[in-house]
Amino acid sequence: MHFNGKNYRTVWMEKSSVFMIEQNLLPFDFRIYESANFRQTCHAIKTMIVRGAGAIGVTAGYAMAQAFVEGSNTDILKYAADAKKEIEETRPTARNLFYAVARVYNAGINNPPDAIVEAEKLAQEDVDASKRIGELGNELIIDGFGIETHCNAGWLAFTDYGTALSPVYRAAATGKKIFVYVDETRPRSQGARLTAWELKNENIPHVIIPDNAGAYLMSLGKIDMVIVGADRIAANGDVANKIGTLEKAIAAREYKIPFYVAAPTSTFDPDCISGKQIPIEERSPEEILYQTGPDQEGNMHRILVCSPDSPAMNPAFDVTPAKLITKIITEKGIINPDKNDIKKLFST
Amino acid sequence: MHFNGKNYRTVWMEKSSVFMIEQNLLPFDFRIYESANFRQTCHAIKTMIVRGAGAIGVTAGYAMAQAFVEGSNTDILKYAADAKKEIEETRPTARNLFYAVARVYNAGINNPPDAIVEAEKLAQEDVDASKRIGELGNELIIDGFGIETHCNAGWLAFTDYGTALSPVYRAAATGKKIFVYVDETRPRSQGARLTAWELKNENIPHVIIPDNAGAYLMSLGKIDMVIVGADRIAANGDVANKIGTLEKAIAAREYKIPFYVAAPTSTFDPDCISGKQIPIEERSPEEILYQTGPDQEGNMHRILVCSPDSPAMNPAFDVTPAKLITKIITEKGIINPDKNDIKKLFST
Repeated sequence: MHFNGKNYRTVWMEKSSVFMIEQNLLPFDFRIYESANFRQTCHAIKTMIVRGAGAIGVTAGYAMAQAFVEGSNTDILKYAADAKKEIEETRPTARNLFYAVARVYNAGINNPPDAIVEAEKLAQEDVDASKRIGELGNELIIDGFGIETHCNAGWLAFTDYGTALSPVYRAAATGKKIFVYVDETRPRSQGARLTAWELKNENIPHVIIPDNAGAYLMSLGKIDMVIVGADRIAANGDVANKIGTLEKAIAAREYKIPFYVAAPTSTFDPDCISGKQIPIEERSPEEILYQTGPDQEGNMHRILVCSPDSPAMNPAFDVTPAKLITKIITEKGIINPDKNDIKKLFST
Repeated sequence: MHFNGKNYRTVWMEKSSVFMIEQNLLPFDFRIYESANFRQTCHAIKTMIVRGAGAIGVTAGYAMAQAFVEGSNTDILKYAADAKKEIEETRPTARNLFYAVARVYNAGINNPPDAIVEAEKLAQEDVDASKRIGELGNELIIDGFGIETHCNAGWLAFTDYGTALSPVYRAAATGKKIFVYVDETRPRSQGARLTAWELKNENIPHVIIPDNAGAYLMSLGKIDMVIVGADRIAANGDVANKIGTLEKAIAAREYKIPFYVAAPTSTFDPDCISGKQIPIEERSPEEILYQTGPDQEGNMHRILVCSPDSPAMNPAFDVTPAKLITKIITEKGIINPDKNDIKKLFST
């Protein structure tokens, strides 16, 4: 996608360095973060310099490839195995991370130089899948639609295009008039900060709404479809995604509004029987208690936005049961959120 | 209720001045705002120096009484009628405002000195109703309950005790162990800023949660009941309350969790047939785009928390249909959210 007239992927590798858009600084500052080794890349994933299921996956794949480069002067198999464990411990929920690390690791232990080849292949697959999801998802969008989305599943969350936003971009590119209701997505405000920023850069009409306003706008008939991404999809179609997704899915069903999940097959976890098995990351309460942003002069401040001395609870994801999901848009087709359709994804 | 060992009402009148806790400064600073005339009191309501259905009502009643004092040297009936209109235009949704203004106005046009007497009577009724709601609501709370609440319907939202929080205070006072999940309540964060502050002052165990986390915590079985206040209740039991209430009610029903609304009879609007007739206030997008709070040194800053140049939409209330409400707790008893039960409130 474009920023300031230049085309960017969210993450890429050059020689043994991994480069990524510094997402913690967005939308107030656009900078590229260079990670020289796999540990620094782990740090980038942990601190959410890079975030979003697909982008985490591709970055983790690159980190695994970095480990094979770094381990070449030592016991490479031990170095890579230790690195694999470390990378897998950065964040627990997104399936793409484990999927990418396993593929690059398996390529590397057979022939270390293949690790980078496999990591690049994963990045390209992520781009291609996102693009295809856009084409397929666009078929669900009717001219004039009001579309609600939660969190950020745009190009920043993947290597390019995104998942939930990819059909939106495609619809706009094919001349459909659409309007996007962007959930703020507290506590980290990925909707207000990242999705709104992406949509503005692509000139797509949109408005930021408080997370609290979703059901109200649905009750007024403003929302024609809800589309979100996913961090992990279980074999039965249950979907782990950003906290608050579950609430939107329940509200959408109340108002008979289709609720779509857009995700590449790398987000599916066929070994995970149901959503109950998906580990939910608990993040620091400070993400709720404090907010960071610029004042009128552009000086950044970190301010307290809650009552002092009250504790906060910060589960980063929730699980939406399959029964609340209308369809899942994958790069291999639009499927039902059920065991059989999901099984078919992996048999072809 | 208590702050720093002293007992406070949220709003009170001395001579011709109205005094109120400056709620825009809470929880970072505790100050009393003095309003010398009815226009200044209107300003206080509009800018949310005072907020919350009951507190708005009592303050508006005092404003009406101030107008009768101020108008004594002029055409008092004209002055009072103009003032009534101005006070009624401060905020559109809370029923209590119109209820209080009408009562004080009717008392004053018969005999101007009665205006203050009536305003004081309204304040005392608000306190008594809140206290009684606490006693009745407490009967619904079982020892060990996890209780979710949205926005602030505590003593700050009324003259004392509050509505949604009054049963919580009563339960704690009678020795029940309870735990309160406080919805942050974006965009103005009345939960994180005011409810959490109240609960901390009263030593009630609680945690601030993002508005997005409600359904997730319900799905985990952490929430035994949801209790909220109301800004206006229609004759059919539909309830206008802080934006996001509707979403919690839909989620609560999904998980078969009782959803209670606590409100005095002054919040009921018998002339309003259904929630569709309740005017919903649209507030400034700036409440979403900016946040104010202290940095580590205690210096206050107003910072941008969204992507620059993206618009925001800020409906302040939503309407929860009666079918999603388990019971309404009033000072005259716990009733069903239906036409007949509500009619009975006004026939006794």
